[in-house]
Amino acid sequence: MAKGKINKVVLAYSGGLDTSVILRWLQENYGCEVVTFTADIGQGEEVEPARAKATAAGVKEIHIDDLREEFVRDFVFPMLRANALYEGEYKLGTSIARPLIAKRLVEIAVATGADAISHGATGKGNDQVRFELTAYALKPDIQIIAPWREWDLLSREKLLAYAETHGIPVEMKRDGTKSPYSMDANLLHISYEGYDLEDPWVEPGPDMWRWTVAPEQAPDRPTEITLSFAGGDCVAVDGKTLSPADLLAELNRIGGANGIGRDDIVENRFVGMKSRGCYETPGGTILLKAHRAMESLTLDREAAHLKDELMPRYASLVYNGFWYSPERLMLQAAIDQTQSVVNGEVRLKLYKGNVLVVGRRSPTDSLFDASIATFEEDAGAYNQGDATGFIRLNALRLRVAGRKRG
Amino acid sequence: MAKGKINKVVLAYSGGLDTSVILRWLQENYGCEVVTFTADIGQGEEVEPARAKATAAGVKEIHIDDLREEFVRDFVFPMLRANALYEGEYKLGTSIARPLIAKRLVEIAVATGADAISHGATGKGNDQVRFELTAYALKPDIQIIAPWREWDLLSREKLLAYAETHGIPVEMKRDGTKSPYSMDANLLHISYEGYDLEDPWVEPGPDMWRWTVAPEQAPDRPTEITLSFAGGDCVAVDGKTLSPADLLAELNRIGGANGIGRDDIVENRFVGMKSRGCYETPGGTILLKAHRAMESLTLDREAAHLKDELMPRYASLVYNGFWYSPERLMLQAAIDQTQSVVNGEVRLKLYKGNVLVVGRRSPTDSLFDASIATFEEDAGAYNQGDATGFIRLNALRLRVAGRKRG
Amino acid sequence: MAKGKINKVVLAYSGGLDTSVILRWLQENYGCEVVTFTADIGQGEEVEPARAKATAAGVKEIHIDDLREEFVRDFVFPMLRANALYEGEYKLGTSIARPLIAKRLVEIAVATGADAISHGATGKGNDQVRFELTAYALKPDIQIIAPWREWDLLSREKLLAYAETHGIPVEMKRDGTKSPYSMDANLLHISYEGYDLEDPWVEPGPDMWRWTVAPEQAPDRPTEITLSFAGGDCVAVDGKTLSPADLLAELNRIGGANGIGRDDIVENRFVGMKSRGCYETPGGTILLKAHRAMESLTLDREAAHLKDELMPRYASLVYNGFWYSPERLMLQAAIDQTQSVVNGEVRLKLYKGNVLVVGRRSPTDSLFDASIATFEEDAGAYNQGDATGFIRLNALRLRVAGRKRG
Amino acid sequence: MAKGKINKVVLAYSGGLDTSVILRWLQENYGCEVVTFTADIGQGEEVEPARAKATAAGVKEIHIDDLREEFVRDFVFPMLRANALYEGEYKLGTSIARPLIAKRLVEIAVATGADAISHGATGKGNDQVRFELTAYALKPDIQIIAPWREWDLLSREKLLAYAETHGIPVEMKRDGTKSPYSMDANLLHISYEGYDLEDPWVEPGPDMWRWTVAPEQAPDRPTEITLSFAGGDCVAVDGKTLSPADLLAELNRIGGANGIGRDDIVENRFVGMKSRGCYETPGGTILLKAHRAMESLTLDREAAHLKDELMPRYASLVYNGFWYSPERLMLQAAIDQTQSVVNGEVRLKLYKGNVLVVGRRSPTDSLFDASIATFEEDAGAYNQGDATGFIRLNALRLRVAGRKRG
Repeated sequence: MAKGKINKVVLAYSGGLDTSVILRWLQENYGCEVVTFTADIGQGEEVEPARAKATAAGVKEIHIDDLREEFVRDFVFPMLRANALYEGEYKLGTSIARPLIAKRLVEIAVATGADAISHGATGKGNDQVRFELTAYALKPDIQIIAPWREWDLLSREKLLAYAETHGIPVEMKRDGTKSPYSMDANLLHISYEGYDLEDPWVEPGPDMWRWTVAPEQAPDRPTEITLSFAGGDCVAVDGKTLSPADLLAELNRIGGANGIGRDDIVENRFVGMKSRGCYETPGGTILLKAHRAMESLTLDREAAHLKDELMPRYASLVYNGFWYSPERLMLQAAIDQTQSVVNGEVRLKLYKGNVLVVGRRSPTDSLFDASIATFEEDAGAYNQGDATGFIRLNALRLRVAGRKRG
Repeated sequence: MAKGKINKVVLAYSGGLDTSVILRWLQENYGCEVVTFTADIGQGEEVEPARAKATAAGVKEIHIDDLREEFVRDFVFPMLRANALYEGEYKLGTSIARPLIAKRLVEIAVATGADAISHGATGKGNDQVRFELTAYALKPDIQIIAPWREWDLLSREKLLAYAETHGIPVEMKRDGTKSPYSMDANLLHISYEGYDLEDPWVEPGPDMWRWTVAPEQAPDRPTEITLSFAGGDCVAVDGKTLSPADLLAELNRIGGANGIGRDDIVENRFVGMKSRGCYETPGGTILLKAHRAMESLTLDREAAHLKDELMPRYASLVYNGFWYSPERLMLQAAIDQTQSVVNGEVRLKLYKGNVLVVGRRSPTDSLFDASIATFEEDAGAYNQGDATGFIRLNALRLRVAGRKRG
Repeated sequence: MAKGKINKVVLAYSGGLDTSVILRWLQENYGCEVVTFTADIGQGEEVEPARAKATAAGVKEIHIDDLREEFVRDFVFPMLRANALYEGEYKLGTSIARPLIAKRLVEIAVATGADAISHGATGKGNDQVRFELTAYALKPDIQIIAPWREWDLLSREKLLAYAETHGIPVEMKRDGTKSPYSMDANLLHISYEGYDLEDPWVEPGPDMWRWTVAPEQAPDRPTEITLSFAGGDCVAVDGKTLSPADLLAELNRIGGANGIGRDDIVENRFVGMKSRGCYETPGGTILLKAHRAMESLTLDREAAHLKDELMPRYASLVYNGFWYSPERLMLQAAIDQTQSVVNGEVRLKLYKGNVLVVGRRSPTDSLFDASIATFEEDAGAYNQGDATGFIRLNALRLRVAGRKRG
Repeated sequence: MAKGKINKVVLAYSGGLDTSVILRWLQENYGCEVVTFTADIGQGEEVEPARAKATAAGVKEIHIDDLREEFVRDFVFPMLRANALYEGEYKLGTSIARPLIAKRLVEIAVATGADAISHGATGKGNDQVRFELTAYALKPDIQIIAPWREWDLLSREKLLAYAETHGIPVEMKRDGTKSPYSMDANLLHISYEGYDLEDPWVEPGPDMWRWTVAPEQAPDRPTEITLSFAGGDCVAVDGKTLSPADLLAELNRIGGANGIGRDDIVENRFVGMKSRGCYETPGGTILLKAHRAMESLTLDREAAHLKDELMPRYASLVYNGFWYSPERLMLQAAIDQTQSVVNGEVRLKLYKGNVLVVGRRSPTDSLFDASIATFEEDAGAYNQGDATGFIRLNALRLRVAGRKRG
């Protein structure tokens, strides 16, 4: 892609060092107008300061959107309905935000007449793939500029030097600290990569974690909460109905206070390498546990099993960036088909890192029939003799084979 | 199956109330000789007392076997290599013991010239299926007597009355307590069903649990352990090599002391009903977490993903009793094919119910390549430009569709 | 189930020997009123004669329905959208009709206040399962009488004797022949089981087949047809729009004349045994081939692959009788999600048993892009250099493993 | 990859125009020594002429190998055990040969001290991926030169001009004809792409096909053959034991004479585009049909179903070039686990394009039990009453849900 053909590019812009350098680099190397887009997806930092910075950098079209409700309602919740876990552990906090950001980048490109989009993801990671697959799916002729794959500013030192040379202000974090980790945050999670995590035998220091207290520091008494579900989504905490974003924020608060949701894992990136990441997903951890408990009471066995078998593939699709793909829509259709009956309440104890299910009920949709399951006499609800034929026919093929080959 | 045709039956016999009644009932109703079989699979009760009881009941052929090593080595460990969890939660502690017991029943039937086996599992549960599918697969012409599906002693009261009438001694548990729950135990776990668990909204009382302390009562400081894996199996704790059964017992001890491995779930039985069960699987919970961590470092991505997709089916096969089936063998072959590289060590922190992975290493088989994954300059180990083509061809089908249908 | 408790039963009644005997046997053994239900699902025999026979047998409520359009539209077509083949071969002709018949039985039971239904399927086959699973799913408290599992009329001779004793008229088929095979027919197929087919090494005689000419007897010149698809369903033959039932009938005619759609297979029944069946499915064979060709042009690759992976399970569900199950609905939702783009035309040559696809096009939805696929210069539509990065990152995990373990 | 660093490269060399140009182009552009490798994998052309041509081009190390037996035994047969079909249609004839050729390229590179390999596959197709994934898996540090992705000779005209300029002799095919199609052949198949096939609505001309007669031209009487299987592989034709390669060649001959094995399909390439291909796979078509018939008699139901569910993924792996991957080995282990019992004979009629199974038997391993399956009285081999309990427990979950929600 020859530089110089781009007239206008929409940049996913946070106002931090990396994207500030990219903004300048795009202006310098592509000689094009840059439109900035900054989203509030619950990362916990103010987005408005990006406006002044972009203005100072000469940007004329500045887009700042609060996407928190859309993020949780249309991305996080559908994924939770799938009980999605990548490689059995990772709750997909970073993955699930990327399609939304890329969708908005494309929408703004269309609205502003831009012919390209740009992002600050590196050439080694998954995020570049997630951004770009989404953009290509939604606008096949879009041009994409990924500076990290083009430039030679491949270390923090070089970035800082470029910033200094070009008069780009470099700020410390507001709290005065500077994390040595590569981080990403949104309403679902905060992640850490790099630095001492690059040795998977080494435990990260206690100061790394930001959203949760250590289990050891959490309260000595459990916190009990009751979550209400409707159609597979959590809609209320302790009887109080909340919007999707507010609900997730509230569970992050409660979970974080109880040391819930830390994960330290080695994962396989789509681009082919293993990497080590640490994650804090307090609300998501609670919701996954509670949703499965709600399903355990209300979902048919075979529907639940089929969901479990499809889940790893669904999770891989989300991880790899194929949110806007026909196959993700297929799986979502299958999953959502089952969720209308996932209604009721789950009681949880949160205690020093543990999420313990202690009760679940569904007046309208429980398939738990105590009159059948009871160990006491059941007054004919279940005929034990039926089991004989059930077993004998399930065994028939094994018996025929055993006779032939035993 | 007309009663009276049986000459000799091998009974899975614990010496407790149920199987003592069954023993007598078989003698009375089938007029046949009864051979008893009592196995030590780590249930934590003495098996030798069964000998005197059986003798007193007129049994001439009494078999008492210590199957603990075989149980862990040939049943538990292969299942752990699969990371098997039924319905995302249940660690299959009861399920995995049944095929071994049934296999021994059949072996003893062959050795003693018996034409039937008998067991004390009810007509509502999974265990009858697991026992009988195994027996039919290994000896297709075996006859099976399941008294619970035949008799009318369908409550505890009737059982006690039968015992009294027939002079069967009824003992209290040795510790003087009598649990109101239906329980099952072996080296992998202890389970509880029935009583107040029959209302899934109700939390069981704290006295129910037997193997683990409550997280609240566990020590205030974490216990750190290092587990060593060879060929996918855990072989040592803190550098000390242990036999399979000793290793699992040791992890049960450490895990139990730290409040690890309690599960409270609603599950779907093979016979078609939902039931609620509580389980303590301290060692198994530790091993599952550690095994997955070891795999995360050493297993190829696609092999790991395929394992994850096959796992729910494997778990269902074990749960449903199809251990001795061609399809379980197929899946085991696929799983075991991957495990020769699962070697190394995992460091864990055990703390008040939490199993936290804090390190993993494999000098021989780690696929984690820090020189590629690093956020620093990588000296050419990875060419970021490769990602452009990778993304563009992964996107090609989406772009063609977008152009046609966008 | 104690006999005598039934007040009124709805019988699936053809008017043939078996169901005539059943009718009488129900009256005699259950002392209940019998309601008959006879369906035209395209089996190729008149259904009206059943009315006179039922009347003669004392039946007061006689239901005769033409279900052909519903059968093809709501059962056959959804199944074809799945490309369903059981065990790679069987086109599920019998299986797919059973849920519809059972649904109508239940509807009539509700309408007439009957407390039971009855059918003439044997205790060895799949049809009993399909009928009864449907009935239980739609009306959980229905009672089901399956005479073949109760009575002792277990051979044709005994049936004939019962008929003679009870004055039940036994007719020859109208064409004077009497097939030695057990047969089933509907608009999708006709099947043959039993007799010389019970030795799977023996080829059935040429007189067995009824709907198709032998390939050797088919015309020496191919017949060309063009099928039109809309939303995944075939809607027209050679440009002529036809209703679902008329379309399938027309393709049966054309296919049968060209020797198309014979299958001779050994299959695995749900009840655990292998059986051998021969089938003629002329129209269905054509539609399966054409539908896949239409999909090959219009469906996204990953959607198509996911359909292929889910298909065997879908087929097993249909075969086993789980049409009205949550898991079939899940799969159907996933499949149907993909079909809105399956529009266009397929050209076929039918020749002596062969269905040859010779062309497919879709002006609105083809994803075949000749400008990309061409072996000639493509003017930049595809950048061959992209393949380098694509391959290198797909290979990365293999290379890392190779370096470690090579 | 900067040109000029390569010292010695092993080229997959046929002696045809493309690879002759590549040979010269490598010498010219990389200034390196070229080693040629020419394989006989049953493509039906002499390989020895390649020696003289290579010598004339200045090549000193010339490798010519007869790989036919290895090809069929170690690649085609394992794939046939999987019943592999890509996208329901494609028999993977090209795909399965590439890993073998790439493996030999790497072996020769090691033996000759070469640091690179090169091939003549284009940047649009699957073959480049298959070659290179294999090479990278087996020798991670290998360098790969893919001239079609580097040079600008992107049309036949430019190739011919280059050949003329550089004095490369251009021959007509020995039979004087020149096909306008891009073709590939080996013992399993011959393929055609490009030219008029680039319009998927157009039927290719009758002169395109080379290995099979048109069904219309095939004999008017069927040819009957009996194939013998041992351990899942076909080992004899009409009782005559043949080596793998000889057996496949013989079936190609018989199948081709009967018009068997033509396929005309639109397929999805791994690189993201749809393409249209025509294939002749006479022997492979016969073997697939016969192997499935042999399995239908000898394989357990659930093993067969699991194979069917895994097959599409296996086929994709082969198609995409992941033969030497952990996941293909996993699936192969699962598949091969089942094949020891696939022994016996299958009778086939071959007639004008049709492969008709007319009998199958297995004295040692048939699971078909006529005494159970019979429609006549079975003397107690099967208890029809067992079906009642079987159905009722299979229906239980549906009934509970129906009661709750009906």
